Formats: sequence, structure tokens, C-alpha cells
Amino acid sequence: MQIILWPRDEYETRLARIRREMEASSTDAILLSDNANIYYLTGRVFAGYAYVPLKGMPVYFVRRPVELEGDGIVYIRKPEEITESIGMSAPASIGLELDVTPYSTVTRLAKVFPGSELKNASPVMRAVRAVKTPLALKMLRESGAKHTRVYKRIPGLFQEGMSDYDLQVSIEHLSRMQGCLGQFRISGDTMELYMGNVLAGRNADSPSPYDFAMGGAGMDPSLPVGADGTLITPDTTVMVDINGNYNGYMTDMTRVFALGTLDPLAVKAHQCSIDIHHALCDMMRPGTPAKALWEKAEEIVMKADLKPYYMGHRQHAGFIGHGVGIEINELPVIAPRSRDILQEGNVIALEPKFVIPKVGAVGIENTYIVHADSVECITLAPEEIIYFDK
Amino acid sequence: MQIILWPRDEYETRLARIRREMEASSTDAILLSDNANIYYLTGRVFAGYAYVPLKGMPVYFVRRPVELEGDGIVYIRKPEEITESIGMSAPASIGLELDVTPYSTVTRLAKVFPGSELKNASPVMRAVRAVKTPLALKMLRESGAKHTRVYKRIPGLFQEGMSDYDLQVSIEHLSRMQGCLGQFRISGDTMELYMGNVLAGRNADSPSPYDFAMGGAGMDPSLPVGADGTLITPDTTVMVDINGNYNGYMTDMTRVFALGTLDPLAVKAHQCSIDIHHALCDMMRPGTPAKALWEKAEEIVMKADLKPYYMGHRQHAGFIGHGVGIEINELPVIAPRSRDILQEGNVIALEPKFVIPKVGAVGIENTYIVHADSVECITLAPEEIIYFDK
Repeated sequence: MQIILWPRDEYETRLARIRREMEASSTDAILLSDNANIYYLTGRVFAGYAYVPLKGMPVYFVRRPVELEGDGIVYIRKPEEITESIGMSAPASIGLELDVTPYSTVTRLAKVFPGSELKNASPVMRAVRAVKTPLALKMLRESGAKHTRVYKRIPGLFQEGMSDYDLQVSIEHLSRMQGCLGQFRISGDTMELYMGNVLAGRNADSPSPYDFAMGGAGMDPSLPVGADGTLITPDTTVMVDINGNYNGYMTDMTRVFALGTLDPLAVKAHQCSIDIHHALCDMMRPGTPAKALWEKAEEIVMKADLKPYYMGHRQHAGFIGHGVGIEINELPVIAPRSRDILQEGNVIALEPKFVIPKVGAVGIENTYIVHADSVECITLAPEEIIYFDK
Repeated sequence: MQIILWPRDEYETRLARIRREMEASSTDAILLSDNANIYYLTGRVFAGYAYVPLKGMPVYFVRRPVELEGDGIVYIRKPEEITESIGMSAPASIGLELDVTPYSTVTRLAKVFPGSELKNASPVMRAVRAVKTPLALKMLRESGAKHTRVYKRIPGLFQEGMSDYDLQVSIEHLSRMQGCLGQFRISGDTMELYMGNVLAGRNADSPSPYDFAMGGAGMDPSLPVGADGTLITPDTTVMVDINGNYNGYMTDMTRVFALGTLDPLAVKAHQCSIDIHHALCDMMRPGTPAKALWEKAEEIVMKADLKPYYMGHRQHAGFIGHGVGIEINELPVIAPRSRDILQEGNVIALEPKFVIPKVGAVGIENTYIVHADSVECITLAPEEIIYFDK
């Protein structure tokens, strides 16, 4: 089994991007152990460490799996064995993933590099991963196409008397049968979500502890997010936000379904979400500040007089979009105090949503690729509210 | 919404247990933010921090959800606001969850307690959670009963021509319809698994990077574990290790299914696993060193001449059992260098397994409660190899 699964030029591109960011932050070497970062560089996941010096060959310190092949592989049992291999050429500064690696682990790893200044490699890798390579974009389009196929079949899954949970389980099953990998990668371990979120009616207004755009009470207090068993009843909505990870890169998409006749306020708010998407698509170009997108959306919402329902009702989310790729929460963040500036190759999930009391959640989410002078939507299911009974 | 969801006496018991371990490690206060630990204490998950001083009232610093009610709740936007609330009564030492909280977060939180010595609260909470309360045991029995019902229906899910992946998706769907919460809580973020593992035939011998007892190549290099699409064919086995989290406490169970006629070596190894379970059940009493269990199992395996296949073939796992509860990897660990000593109230998943080349994985896993003078198995599906075609 080759340790590097990307084509050679893809691997070289990724390595060069990492080194460019390392150089910009004066980091002489980084040691990656986060699965998402190791996958970014190698195209696979292994247990161990990828050591990338600014100059010279990367070294892969592997604990598991056995039998990996390729240049620069050193099998180790514990990180202390790294010292011997690095030896005389210890870097002046070593970047570790301080934003995701536990304190105890960092303390132990730092001792492996006794003479090196400790730097934070997390911003380096976040910056690198925010700009997708052409191959990553191809993978994202593939995930988006499969994701879209599943969403188009959701109306066929609905049966009268279903709860939001029943519908969620049906969509999960369909997704898995279409090859969805299931596992939902989130940076940091404080957010937990099982394959996405289906919210019916009043449950959309249940506040959740997790930092997702919409809440939901969940089925059990140990996992208070999403479907809570609310029946799908006339004149209410069901919002479907099920993840789209069909390879190592995932797309994010939300659509709204309904029964009966909705309060015109809900219909208006749904249209407002679509209007926001259109307006922001015109702005999403390299150089645009992420917060300008947030402000534009805010302006549209205020004009439409929908502020009390925007991004939640009893509880409001603080962002309306986020980068997506190997993990669901990548850069840029579309939020009022974001300092991110859009770049060509960003992949952004926009999710301006509303919660209408007694009706439910409305609004859509799409995943977009930012090109030099256009944006490309890769989640192409119909955007209007789909009525199961019409 | 009450912040404390456990019955009052359960909450008091849990608080007292935490304080006993704090006292033993000379920790004056702990600040918990890990979802698993917050759930342990309160019976719910919230975003924020549970501050537990050795004496005096706990304070709950909450970021989300809104509208929580109860004693000692302080809503905050950022951890720096904790300082004001704690104020004059800053503890001499503060325990943070150093083994799971990212380095950057710990550094930030430590500044909230400028005069306090930094201690590690992770061992405190691991020790507390290793011994289950009677209510936790009740929840574990409930999960075990639902888990068992699902396993008993697996033969009815099998259809000719299925791959391991197809069977896995069917079992996942059945589990979800029975109320399985899906989300698989693992301490630390280096292990990733989507709802469990189904391994057919040769794929059982594929080495995986993750620290699970069995491997599997997975469906995509971004998640290299478990089912890889291997067809379920005559004279091979399918090992099913799908998780059983039907409330905040989960059980762990593995069973083996097969088609055709198995190599006698596989049949012998499966029986050896059952024999190991019986032998270890006789030893699992308070006071037994965890490593004595590992050694006894090793002895049985050596006598049966099955060592090359034990706990993997191309790659071997380093443990044969583990505590289970809110997370899948709790204490005690049944491994050669484990220093854990069994206690009444431990809940242990034992999984002595074998990989037989060309046949697949065999052996069973059960979850046991350690009582004062007995063990109680709470995963009660039939233990023999079940032949789909007989």
C-alpha cells in the first residue's frame, strides 16, 4: 500500500502550498497528526505523524497501518522515537496543530523537539485547506452530484404519518446506499452531529448547544440536536440538512419540504433566503471580505422585515456560511467579525435560514466554488419549497 | 429547560464521586468542557463549562443553548467572563481536561485562573466514569437489550449477493429504526468510525490505521476502516460489530455470521473466543488486575495454538477489552501493560477475536457489568456462528 495516494503532481502541489504558508509564518517544520491534515497531504489516513520541513524530504512516522510503502516512511511505536530520526537537523521552530491537538499530547510532542520554538500549525493548515486544488474541486463536484441525486429522491421517501426522525432515517439509508461515507468530519470535538439534521415544525425552534445554523431538540438529552420525533403535519415545514460526503471532500446542502399551505410569512422568508443567495453569488469573488457578504445578507433581511426569524428565533446562529471540504467547518467564515477575504478556490456553504414560529424552518443552503470571475453552485437540487402532497 | 436532567440524588452522587477523585488528586476545582464529562455530571450536553469546586456550589457557565434553568447558571459569551464570576475565590489549583482539550483552548482557559496551579482533570473524570452508578447500569442494560434485539434480526436482513457494505447499511438502518442514536462517542479525535464495523472474508485482514480490535479497508481512503464492499461468499465469515448507543450509555457487541462450511480452524478459533469469555468471566471481580485478564486469555490462545491469528493476522491489536459507557474507550483497558484494577461497577467490553486468512474474522464481543461476586452479561444475542444459509 503506497502511503501517498494522490497523483504525484497533486501531492507536490499540496506540499508546496503547505510550505508557502509555513514560510509566511516563519515555521521551519511542522508535525501533523490530525486525520484531516494527514488526509489533505497524503490522500489517506494513518496513525502517526507527517513531518514536513521547509526544505528537504517529508518524513512519515507511522504507527498504523502496517505495510505502508513509499519514500520517507519510519515505523515508530511512540513519538519519542521521532527525536532519533530528526536528530542533528532539529528545526529552529516546530509547528504543531495547537488548535486541535490535546494539551497533554502537545506537551509530550514538544519534548520531542527540545531545542525548537513551538509554533501553531493550525492556522497554516486552515489557510492551505481553504483554497481547494483542481482535484479537490473535482471531488467536491462528485460529492455534490451524488448529494443532489439523493435530495431529488426525498419526496419519494415521504409517507403520511412520518416524524422528522423517520424521514431522517430514510434519507440516511438512501444516502448510505448511494455511497455516502456517513462520518461527518468537524474540526474540534465540541460539535457532534450524526449525518445531518432534519427538523420538522416547532422543533426547528428548539435551541441546541451545538454551533450549527439550526438547532432541534434531538431524540435524547445525550445528543440534543436535530430530529426529535415531531410528526410532519399540514401547514408546517421539514428542513433537510443531511451531509454529502461521498469521498474525502463533503458538500453541504439544505432544502425545505412541506405539507398543506404555509403561512405567507414562511413563503416570504424562503424567497428571501433565495434572494440572499442570488445577491451574494454576485459578490462572491476573490478579494471580497467575508463580512461584506454577512452585511449584505443582513441588509436584505432588514429590508424584508424578517430579522426576528433570521438564523433562528429563540436562539440565533452567529454565522450564515462557512468553508467546507475535508471538514464541515473550514475557512472562510461568513460572519460579522470575520477577517477572511475570499480567494479563488474557496468552497463556501451559504445558509441564510429562518425559523417561523409554529411553521418551522425555511431557507436553503448551497455549496459554491469561488472562481476568478464567477461562482459555481455544486448542490443543484430544486430550491423552491417542495410540497409532499402536491 | 432544567440544566440538571438527572434525578437529584443521582446528580448528588455523581458530584460526590467527582469530588472524591478531586480530593485524591489534590485538585481544588475543575472546569469541564468536554461533552462526555458535562453529560456525565448533568445528564445533558451544553456548550460552555461546568465549574466544580471541592466545596461550594458548582457554577454552570453556558454559551448555548438559551433558556436553561436551575441553580448556578451564568450565561457567558467567552471564557474570559468566568474570571469575574469566580473572582476573589479563585482556587489554589484548577483541573482542566488536558488529555482531550486542545492546547490553544487550555492556554486560554488557564489565563482565566491566573493564580491557580494547572492540574489535569482528565484522569479524575476517567476514574469517576469507569465506575458506573446504578442508574447508568440501568441505561446500559436498556441499550444492551435494544442492541440484542437488533442483532437477533440480522439473519433476516441477509440477501444473497450482498456485500459487507450492503449488510452494514441494512443493520445501520434497522438500528436507527430501533432508536439507535448513531453518534459514536470516542475519547480523543484520532479514531473515527461510523456506527461500527462489518467485515467480510479477506477484508478482515486489511490493516486499518485506527486503534480498533479489527481493521478493514473501508470504502474510501479518507475513512479506511470496516466494510470495503467485499461480497459475502460461501465458506467465509462476516463479523458484525455495530454500536449500541440507544441512550447516553452504549454497549459493544460482536457476532459472526457465515455462509457455507468454514475451515475447522475458524470454527476452533471462534470456540476459543467463547472459552476465553467464560474463563475471564470467572476472573472479572473487584480487585483483579486488568492485565491478569489479558494474560489468562493469552495463555488459552497459546494452548490452542492460535496465536498467529489472535487479535488480527497481518496487523494485531494491543488490547482485548475496554471499559464502555458514555464513550467507547473508557477504563479499564484490558491490555498487557494496563495498571487498571477491576472495580465493582466497571462495565467492560471483552473482544478476544481472531482473523483466519481467506476465511475472515471470528470471535465474539460482549459487554459485562462487574458486580461484587459475579459478572452480568448485557449483550445476550446467541454466541455461536450463525449460518445465513442453514
